Amino acid sequence: MKKLVLAYSGGLDTSYCAKSLSEQGYEVHAVSVNTGGFSKEEIAEIKQKALTLGAKNYVSIDAVDNFYNKVVKYLIFGNVLKNNTYPLSVSAERIVQAIEIVNYAKENGANYIAHGSTGAGNDQVRFDMIFQILAPEIEIITPIRDQQLSRQQEIDYLKSKGIHMSWEKAKYSVNKGLWGTSVGGDETLTSHLPLPNEAYPSQLTNMGTQRLKLSFTKGELTAIDGKSDTPVALIEKLNAIASQFAIGRDIHVGDTIIGIKGRVGFEAAAPLIIIKAHHTLEKHVLTKWQQQHKEYLSNWYGMLLHEGNYLDEVMRNIETFLSDTQKNVTGDVYVSLHPYRFLIEGIQSEHDLMNAKFGSYGEMNKGWTAEQAKGFIKLSSNAVKIHQSVNNPEK
Amino acid sequence: MKKLVLAYSGGLDTSYCAKSLSEQGYEVHAVSVNTGGFSKEEIAEIKQKALTLGAKNYVSIDAVDNFYNKVVKYLIFGNVLKNNTYPLSVSAERIVQAIEIVNYAKENGANYIAHGSTGAGNDQVRFDMIFQILAPEIEIITPIRDQQLSRQQEIDYLKSKGIHMSWEKAKYSVNKGLWGTSVGGDETLTSHLPLPNEAYPSQLTNMGTQRLKLSFTKGELTAIDGKSDTPVALIEKLNAIASQFAIGRDIHVGDTIIGIKGRVGFEAAAPLIIIKAHHTLEKHVLTKWQQQHKEYLSNWYGMLLHEGNYLDEVMRNIETFLSDTQKNVTGDVYVSLHPYRFLIEGIQSEHDLMNAKFGSYGEMNKGWTAEQAKGFIKLSSNAVKIHQSVNNPEK
Amino acid sequence: MKKLVLAYSGGLDTSYCAKSLSEQGYEVHAVSVNTGGFSKEEIAEIKQKALTLGAKNYVSIDAVDNFYNKVVKYLIFGNVLKNNTYPLSVSAERIVQAIEIVNYAKENGANYIAHGSTGAGNDQVRFDMIFQILAPEIEIITPIRDQQLSRQQEIDYLKSKGIHMSWEKAKYSVNKGLWGTSVGGDETLTSHLPLPNEAYPSQLTNMGTQRLKLSFTKGELTAIDGKSDTPVALIEKLNAIASQFAIGRDIHVGDTIIGIKGRVGFEAAAPLIIIKAHHTLEKHVLTKWQQQHKEYLSNWYGMLLHEGNYLDEVMRNIETFLSDTQKNVTGDVYVSLHPYRFLIEGIQSEHDLMNAKFGSYGEMNKGWTAEQAKGFIKLSSNAVKIHQSVNNPEK
Amino acid sequence: MKKLVLAYSGGLDTSYCAKSLSEQGYEVHAVSVNTGGFSKEEIAEIKQKALTLGAKNYVSIDAVDNFYNKVVKYLIFGNVLKNNTYPLSVSAERIVQAIEIVNYAKENGANYIAHGSTGAGNDQVRFDMIFQILAPEIEIITPIRDQQLSRQQEIDYLKSKGIHMSWEKAKYSVNKGLWGTSVGGDETLTSHLPLPNEAYPSQLTNMGTQRLKLSFTKGELTAIDGKSDTPVALIEKLNAIASQFAIGRDIHVGDTIIGIKGRVGFEAAAPLIIIKAHHTLEKHVLTKWQQQHKEYLSNWYGMLLHEGNYLDEVMRNIETFLSDTQKNVTGDVYVSLHPYRFLIEGIQSEHDLMNAKFGSYGEMNKGWTAEQAKGFIKLSSNAVKIHQSVNNPEK
Repeated sequence: MKKLVLAYSGGLDTSYCAKSLSEQGYEVHAVSVNTGGFSKEEIAEIKQKALTLGAKNYVSIDAVDNFYNKVVKYLIFGNVLKNNTYPLSVSAERIVQAIEIVNYAKENGANYIAHGSTGAGNDQVRFDMIFQILAPEIEIITPIRDQQLSRQQEIDYLKSKGIHMSWEKAKYSVNKGLWGTSVGGDETLTSHLPLPNEAYPSQLTNMGTQRLKLSFTKGELTAIDGKSDTPVALIEKLNAIASQFAIGRDIHVGDTIIGIKGRVGFEAAAPLIIIKAHHTLEKHVLTKWQQQHKEYLSNWYGMLLHEGNYLDEVMRNIETFLSDTQKNVTGDVYVSLHPYRFLIEGIQSEHDLMNAKFGSYGEMNKGWTAEQAKGFIKLSSNAVKIHQSVNNPEK
Repeated sequence: MKKLVLAYSGGLDTSYCAKSLSEQGYEVHAVSVNTGGFSKEEIAEIKQKALTLGAKNYVSIDAVDNFYNKVVKYLIFGNVLKNNTYPLSVSAERIVQAIEIVNYAKENGANYIAHGSTGAGNDQVRFDMIFQILAPEIEIITPIRDQQLSRQQEIDYLKSKGIHMSWEKAKYSVNKGLWGTSVGGDETLTSHLPLPNEAYPSQLTNMGTQRLKLSFTKGELTAIDGKSDTPVALIEKLNAIASQFAIGRDIHVGDTIIGIKGRVGFEAAAPLIIIKAHHTLEKHVLTKWQQQHKEYLSNWYGMLLHEGNYLDEVMRNIETFLSDTQKNVTGDVYVSLHPYRFLIEGIQSEHDLMNAKFGSYGEMNKGWTAEQAKGFIKLSSNAVKIHQSVNNPEK
Repeated sequence: MKKLVLAYSGGLDTSYCAKSLSEQGYEVHAVSVNTGGFSKEEIAEIKQKALTLGAKNYVSIDAVDNFYNKVVKYLIFGNVLKNNTYPLSVSAERIVQAIEIVNYAKENGANYIAHGSTGAGNDQVRFDMIFQILAPEIEIITPIRDQQLSRQQEIDYLKSKGIHMSWEKAKYSVNKGLWGTSVGGDETLTSHLPLPNEAYPSQLTNMGTQRLKLSFTKGELTAIDGKSDTPVALIEKLNAIASQFAIGRDIHVGDTIIGIKGRVGFEAAAPLIIIKAHHTLEKHVLTKWQQQHKEYLSNWYGMLLHEGNYLDEVMRNIETFLSDTQKNVTGDVYVSLHPYRFLIEGIQSEHDLMNAKFGSYGEMNKGWTAEQAKGFIKLSSNAVKIHQSVNNPEK
Repeated sequence: MKKLVLAYSGGLDTSYCAKSLSEQGYEVHAVSVNTGGFSKEEIAEIKQKALTLGAKNYVSIDAVDNFYNKVVKYLIFGNVLKNNTYPLSVSAERIVQAIEIVNYAKENGANYIAHGSTGAGNDQVRFDMIFQILAPEIEIITPIRDQQLSRQQEIDYLKSKGIHMSWEKAKYSVNKGLWGTSVGGDETLTSHLPLPNEAYPSQLTNMGTQRLKLSFTKGELTAIDGKSDTPVALIEKLNAIASQFAIGRDIHVGDTIIGIKGRVGFEAAAPLIIIKAHHTLEKHVLTKWQQQHKEYLSNWYGMLLHEGNYLDEVMRNIETFLSDTQKNVTGDVYVSLHPYRFLIEGIQSEHDLMNAKFGSYGEMNKGWTAEQAKGFIKLSSNAVKIHQSVNNPEK
């Protein structure tokens, strides 16, 4: 039997795959991996669709916790924003979805994995790489990439097979998950147009101001306003609150893995708030060199994740490094939310290196004398002073 | 004759220096260096003060163009925001002020340079380093650092010498310049309190929305809404417009040169808008590797500038690199201004690498076939696939 | 007419290409690019072969100067040794050869470029990338990669076409050029065997010791023992001298572009001596930060060159940076040559930052007092001292 | 009682300290920390001297294991050679010596620590920083730095106090430890002179060739020629063998912490062999990205160690990272020793990523087809191809 696991989303492309692969004699096991984007109702609907399209069965894998523990946690530890902008929402999801799919396929003895990516984007790379690496014995099947059908051709095919579903194209394609929602539309295919207000999933409903206290423990969000919960639950909660303020919108322009530029809108209220809150806390509790080298490794973590290299052993090494830096990243961060924006107001931490009894910025200090400060500066000048005297001597 | 150049700001500390050094028999030449923070009226007032306090003469050096050409230009080329937050407003000013002061002292045959910095901050380091390196023969005199007097002691001394000026302490100490305004107050001495609205120099006066077109030529801002002018004039203009929206406020927590943490509020409407606009344009016109290595060098440029190492030869090397990367950074950036925030809407450039006739993201492409995409991914997986098969072979 | 430029080396693979492509009706223009590896006699022989095999004509392009000016110069400026070992001899040659070939093809209106690389190595990537980028309109033809024939099959084909040349396989495959000679053999296909002495092209003939003075001007080798010449002539001269001592042998294990590990022996007397001499001179004349950031960019220059990304604009930016760092890299370096090894004995330079009148290492110094040194250390300790007092307070 | 711990080496400077501090009424506890440089006989002699000079007691702390575990191990993991040359022998020792001294002082309730460093070198910084950070309550006393006496003045003082020892100055000052021996002399105070043969502690006694098998387990040296022992014992053993070949000599020119250039000869047979052997093994078992980012962090580990920042928390983070990368660094490395040089011949490891069944370099591969290789190259060219077509279109 040709047992096939299909990464199924319920959209037109993967529906076409479900039907046409079934017709070709594959035993199609439709699987969707929930990384925070699907409600129970949506999953029920997806399941119904999959079975109608000829799938032998359908499974929805709840991977939100795995998503957090395998990737999101380290994106927070590293304050990772691609090009200082984008929280890598989609990149991170695809990695975890691919791992869940391939594990499911192996556990269930599938010979094939199919997905609906085209040949022009990042997702095909992330999916294929992880599938090939973790299950080189499983064949990958990609009808959309191979056949390059138009939407109409796919719809016509489905109709011809007696499937009469409604496939109207949404004006904006939206990908929702725990770590943010990406939004694509006609505007993001240009370089100059912003997305209109209505393209974003959340709309401004709270015109006031709200203050929150975010508590971090060893780098992880562990309470909001004193109420403890799991990091996943707190991210969801923060997102629900901050979305009322329509916080976290921006547009990212990035280099795709295959070398072309791509532009995408996104809304990521909780990720942007958490990262800036966490980063501010770190500025208070980490040394200069910790911040410096963390940033180098974190940027690379984001880059390699984005490009589908999540399984490279160096990613485990970086995760170990990042975890090790979080020992003292414990404390409270005060945030205020306003329409379309937020402000990190300040922090409190027993590991705060500022205002230690030792000394304060700008105030003359019991810690050292004027003479010592002068000595510090004098010797700090030596290298350039010598360079100057050798290469630009006074005439 | 003991000819002395005093870096003079008109504040209590440098006024104390002016008087007490004059009394000690120095011929005090009071000099202030304008990097964009002083109006003509303020300069006239400062001059009057200096002469009253016993200075032999007073000079105001207009260094705004030098400030732009020596530092600000490269901070824009490098999209430099310290810790992804702070445009290094004050750090950059001090460097240029120090260079102007020491050049003035050398040209005028001074034997001494005096400044009013304390022994606890960054400014003493920046001043002393540049003075020592460029004029090792000139002695540096720092009464405030050496004597550690209280404000009251300084006022009492001045009174005792017949100087009856008003020295009330402003609630917030403000340092204004072309590249932003820093704000310190009781709150910034804590870790947890934000600055109140009234602490910021600009207040919201425009509740609407305004769209601007910023035009860059080889990385420099050369027009706003189609009207060309010098970069300096355009920065000032943009700042005047954006300040009506109270844009550009934030709080920075940083590592001082002498190893303690410091916290400072700032308002930098034009810098933040220009940097994000410039950065977005770069994302469209630079290759991935240009962006990657520019960011590495730019962060170091900011770090070394912050720590007073502006005269290290490596800074000239980095400036050369940054200039070389700006060849194609020419185009228009659309920005919309809103109360307390701004949005980069998009860009237009003949160097735009996105949407080249070559191919578009997400759309299947004439540039390559599905088979070629698969080949790309297959070989891209090789390294980790081998690592996996050697180290985690299937049982 | 199907005009085709064949990158021709005279070996079996490209000879097979010459004949079979001629037979298929292509007008074959055989071109070899000399980057320092071929003598006049060898070129005459290659030409004869090419014409015998049916090539319409043969051209040998002398690219040694271009090779130096486009790549080797920057490898010296950057002290580039891949993995601290390998001077990138072959990688660098391929790039320049590809550029020369594609330029020749464009100038001569060719429709096709053919080369003899297999599908398993680095060279195919370097060739194809540069051909595609600089001449997207020219089709690339690769019979060896496509047909995967054995040596015997190629020989049989040539015989069947009346070509009776001798094709005995050398025990070691050797690639010689200005910047070093690579050596492959049965041993380099293992991980544990070294190459035997006889595999290396140069043999020990000088059992004594020889001292040389290498003079650099702005980073370029401009004289040996006081005799000026072009850098290319001096590299060749140094190589001739040092090869008598069998200097410069080692084995490199590297990551190929396609993700597998490769091992290759090499002999590179002049490159290793020049790089270590240049590097030592730099240690005397550059600041710490220049060395630090040069090394970062240089490593990336080597990496990107190795992987065929020579045409990425960032390479031009790095070259500009590296050139800018060489302003003061002028002086003499003393080297002694011994059997199988060399020693950098010391340098002399007017830009030497050591032993400036300013002060000497280890000797108590007129430049500063004991108190100033203590002040320097005290403030340098601040950051960690605070961290210690906050996080590990004494009980 | 003024209880004082003196870092005592037995040389003139610290002997002067011992006597003069005793005379001033301090209770002097002389302590030397053995990081591999002292024999039992030498320690007995040092002890005798200390007591003669008035020390209340003398302790020799055996810190070789701590030296290895706290620093040397990570220098091996990171293949750390400062400026690609120097194994940081002395820098590493000083750190561990300082930690041992300050711990001893704290455990024994001392109020003072004294050391014999001058005010011109690196050691004062390393000692003072660690003492201040770990024991801010203990006062540091540095007679040599403070008084700046000449050798003759010190000798005269000792004579005047009835101490009649022989203090002839060795022609070369030598600092010996587990991780190498540094050598200073008149020549190292110049930029152009090499050290003569006799300056080096080891002399060529074996004119032949010797082959060794070094076995590493998770990055640590665990056997030589199949005989297991502790890493420390094996480093000592390897050093004894390789020193017969006079291997490991070179001269390092570096930037001191206080900004001047310093030059020092060294002999470090075992360190140089172990690092190159370990590095070669890593090239076979680590991925490209592991090597890339390891090198970045390792260079910084060396830099921060050199500059006395060993106690910065980032060093612990880097150590954690480095340890994590060593999981698969297990295998045998074959080394041949020859007069004045050595060769890494090859490696064997079950984690070897080369010659995996998966595929071999240069041989056409079952792992992928010619078409797939072409696809890889085509898409790898995309970014620069677009850049070229946008910015340098064919006329």
